Amino acid sequence: MSFNRSEEGKYPKESEVKMTVMMMSSDANPEANNVYGGVILKQVDLAAGLVGKRHSGTSNVVTASIDRMVFLKPVFVGDALIITAKITYVRRSSMEIEVNVEAEDLDHGTKIHAATAFVIVVALDENGKPTKVPHLILDDDNDKRRYNEGEIRMKARLKDAGKI
Amino acid sequence: MSFNRSEEGKYPKESEVKMTVMMMSSDANPEANNVYGGVILKQVDLAAGLVGKRHSGTSNVVTASIDRMVFLKPVFVGDALIITAKITYVRRSSMEIEVNVEAEDLDHGTKIHAATAFVIVVALDENGKPTKVPHLILDDDNDKRRYNEGEIRMKARLKDAGKI
Amino acid sequence: MSFNRSEEGKYPKESEVKMTVMMMSSDANPEANNVYGGVILKQVDLAAGLVGKRHSGTSNVVTASIDRMVFLKPVFVGDALIITAKITYVRRSSMEIEVNVEAEDLDHGTKIHAATAFVIVVALDENGKPTKVPHLILDDDNDKRRYNEGEIRMKARLKDAGKI
Amino acid sequence: MSFNRSEEGKYPKESEVKMTVMMMSSDANPEANNVYGGVILKQVDLAAGLVGKRHSGTSNVVTASIDRMVFLKPVFVGDALIITAKITYVRRSSMEIEVNVEAEDLDHGTKIHAATAFVIVVALDENGKPTKVPHLILDDDNDKRRYNEGEIRMKARLKDAGKI
Amino acid sequence: MSFNRSEEGKYPKESEVKMTVMMMSSDANPEANNVYGGVILKQVDLAAGLVGKRHSGTSNVVTASIDRMVFLKPVFVGDALIITAKITYVRRSSMEIEVNVEAEDLDHGTKIHAATAFVIVVALDENGKPTKVPHLILDDDNDKRRYNEGEIRMKARLKDAGKI
Amino acid sequence: MSFNRSEEGKYPKESEVKMTVMMMSSDANPEANNVYGGVILKQVDLAAGLVGKRHSGTSNVVTASIDRMVFLKPVFVGDALIITAKITYVRRSSMEIEVNVEAEDLDHGTKIHAATAFVIVVALDENGKPTKVPHLILDDDNDKRRYNEGEIRMKARLKDAGKI
Repeated sequence: MSFNRSEEGKYPKESEVKMTVMMMSSDANPEANNVYGGVILKQVDLAAGLVGKRHSGTSNVVTASIDRMVFLKPVFVGDALIITAKITYVRRSSMEIEVNVEAEDLDHGTKIHAATAFVIVVALDENGKPTKVPHLILDDDNDKRRYNEGEIRMKARLKDAGKI
Repeated sequence: MSFNRSEEGKYPKESEVKMTVMMMSSDANPEANNVYGGVILKQVDLAAGLVGKRHSGTSNVVTASIDRMVFLKPVFVGDALIITAKITYVRRSSMEIEVNVEAEDLDHGTKIHAATAFVIVVALDENGKPTKVPHLILDDDNDKRRYNEGEIRMKARLKDAGKI
Repeated sequence: MSFNRSEEGKYPKESEVKMTVMMMSSDANPEANNVYGGVILKQVDLAAGLVGKRHSGTSNVVTASIDRMVFLKPVFVGDALIITAKITYVRRSSMEIEVNVEAEDLDHGTKIHAATAFVIVVALDENGKPTKVPHLILDDDNDKRRYNEGEIRMKARLKDAGKI
Repeated sequence: MSFNRSEEGKYPKESEVKMTVMMMSSDANPEANNVYGGVILKQVDLAAGLVGKRHSGTSNVVTASIDRMVFLKPVFVGDALIITAKITYVRRSSMEIEVNVEAEDLDHGTKIHAATAFVIVVALDENGKPTKVPHLILDDDNDKRRYNEGEIRMKARLKDAGKI
Repeated sequence: MSFNRSEEGKYPKESEVKMTVMMMSSDANPEANNVYGGVILKQVDLAAGLVGKRHSGTSNVVTASIDRMVFLKPVFVGDALIITAKITYVRRSSMEIEVNVEAEDLDHGTKIHAATAFVIVVALDENGKPTKVPHLILDDDNDKRRYNEGEIRMKARLKDAGKI
Repeated sequence: MSFNRSEEGKYPKESEVKMTVMMMSSDANPEANNVYGGVILKQVDLAAGLVGKRHSGTSNVVTASIDRMVFLKPVFVGDALIITAKITYVRRSSMEIEVNVEAEDLDHGTKIHAATAFVIVVALDENGKPTKVPHLILDDDNDKRRYNEGEIRMKARLKDAGKI
């Protein structure tokens, strides 16, 4: 009997991901030491996918979309990129993951908030079809607030796409 | 005398970029052959930066933001990713670049539209300060339409950010 | 019924490839900023393989040889490598691909011709055996001239190899 | 006035590092899906260096040695490698970092302890000379126990090296 | 009939590996030009695995452990890392490989001894189970001495692990 | 006093390079396990550059050309690529390096000759200008024969280029 994971819920905490990635010279514009936005986007997507895989427990997850993302501050070669990714909201097979990006200047011990992203990740079954994911257990006020905000963002996305 | 590039304009065509990138096994989810969204985002940003650098002719460009981006179709290992990036709109030191992503299935000779992105890239001078970029010469109806749409998107972004 | 692609011909234009690749610090001699010849050779081969795959439509293509290749001008970290690859000539399972390599200095907006390569790529069927490829449809004088030159080069190669 | 960091102490918690790294097909023995030990060693060293840099606040840190390390369980492509690195002991310019390596099987939601490493990292000043690092503030019983064990290991290393 | 490789012996020379690897900017601490210890560890493990695979002739080998390893001298970007790996001792399915690491400063033509490692590699059969490896043919005094020293190290490891 | 290296000669043996490189899944056509020709070309060029740097002792060397190169046998993921590079001939600032490429099938312990390349590498001084390299000391009949053949190839190249 294959167990129906979606019957049970999971805490946001269970699938949270923390990654620390050293920014190398190969990650940057060779002439200016600024890390490419694309290098950060790649790590953001990787972290979101990992959260989605952990929460869904399905054989595969794919990125469906990423909300408008602003690079608030530049990141430099030699910085440590600190990425925290946590699930905020689920809807059928879709999961919204909030990804926070900080950059730590290891020479001065300072840390800046570089960007925040909201990534939608979809769980697929063994046949590559979208499959329902566990609901979120929300016994923490902060998680509840984040869930409600996630729901508002999801509705805005569906409205933009002409689906509601 | 340092020449003021912003006095003169440039055609969108002059800075257009076309990239073809083979999707390798190291670009994908090891269990499902789907190319990571982050791999595509990295190439999108690289192409936008290249357009921005070509249009501005400044010593450095940085990615300021990327609009909400939807992954319309999955891309697989072995596909050729075909990226076309073209400038649509400029405003002081900011350039909007439209990036189209297609994936070509080389076994079947078919091509799908995988995603479209709008990336804002900012030109910096030698001191890392934003610097004015050349205006766009629009003698083509299509370029004019794209410019006008770019202006609408830029105003929406400024409004969202509470700047107008 | 498996369709015999070699019955029909294809235009050189159909399989043409254009790639733009940023040259990074990891592509260069660490002490001198010159991009390694091997980095360029790798991209040349990649582009030729992609053309061969597109033209043949077979499950696999392999590089059989590369003609003597001269590096005319140095390429530097921070340049954009612009590679254009186009099929010139076919003979049974072999395709000759001409690959042009330009390097664009993005700081000065100048472009140099760095190298030209002729790569022979062979189409393989599902069993890894060489398989006939579509003939070239030549309704353009330039394509005809390039085909004739390709035939001369192919005969010279066969003669060198003692095969004719 | 250049501030003498070594006057003040730091908590082990301040420099702790947590990294999550997806194991890709390029990290493994191509024929058996087992991740190379060397891939894990590279991440272990990276994490230790990051802790050392955070604790010392000096311009550079180098790895001086790594204790005998046993790979307790195999790690596979598709697993998430979870690395936790924390400083245990300091002596002049040397810091001992304990690095724990876990591998999470994302398909089954299980996690194994793959390895533990003790890495000695040395802080260097701007001239590349070893420089004193901040002492450890130990107000936690667990940190105290780890410090004492670190001291025993350090003495054993010095004895092995014929230095005491 | 599947041939039992373990019946016959092999000379240490037969599986010896020599690797030369250029140290690139992406292998180093971006701020100090020192190659990461982890980069060296990765190459050491790769070389040891290759020796183990050659000696055992089995379908797969995995790294079981690496002895305490001291980085005697720093290695820099632009150096050539010269790695020599040779089997010293075997015991059932385990092989001890000695790996010597030298760094050649190509600008000055000087070479330093950077590190020596002892890596234990285990041969696995097609089912992933440890499998007996060929014995070592020792007709050279140096190989005999290395074998005896390997035996002493192996006993010390087993004693440390509480296995004898 | 800066020492004039070109006054003295060097033995071909002094600058010989042997490299062993594992062929990984990221080095191959994702659908067919064949290693890309370009991956081999990159290693060939790297080895030739290393020989040129060792022989010349100058601050930088660049690849000037590579002779027609035939891929005699396919190389597969999991093979060890064994590259041997040795200088054959010098002329002012130019060095001809012969590079032999073998592929070892580690599962069957067999080795094939995959390709031979002749690479011309030029020594540059600190100002990036071609600079004379040490002559070759030829006290070995094999080295003398290789030198004479190198001279014939060099004359053919100069004739092809219309320089003699």
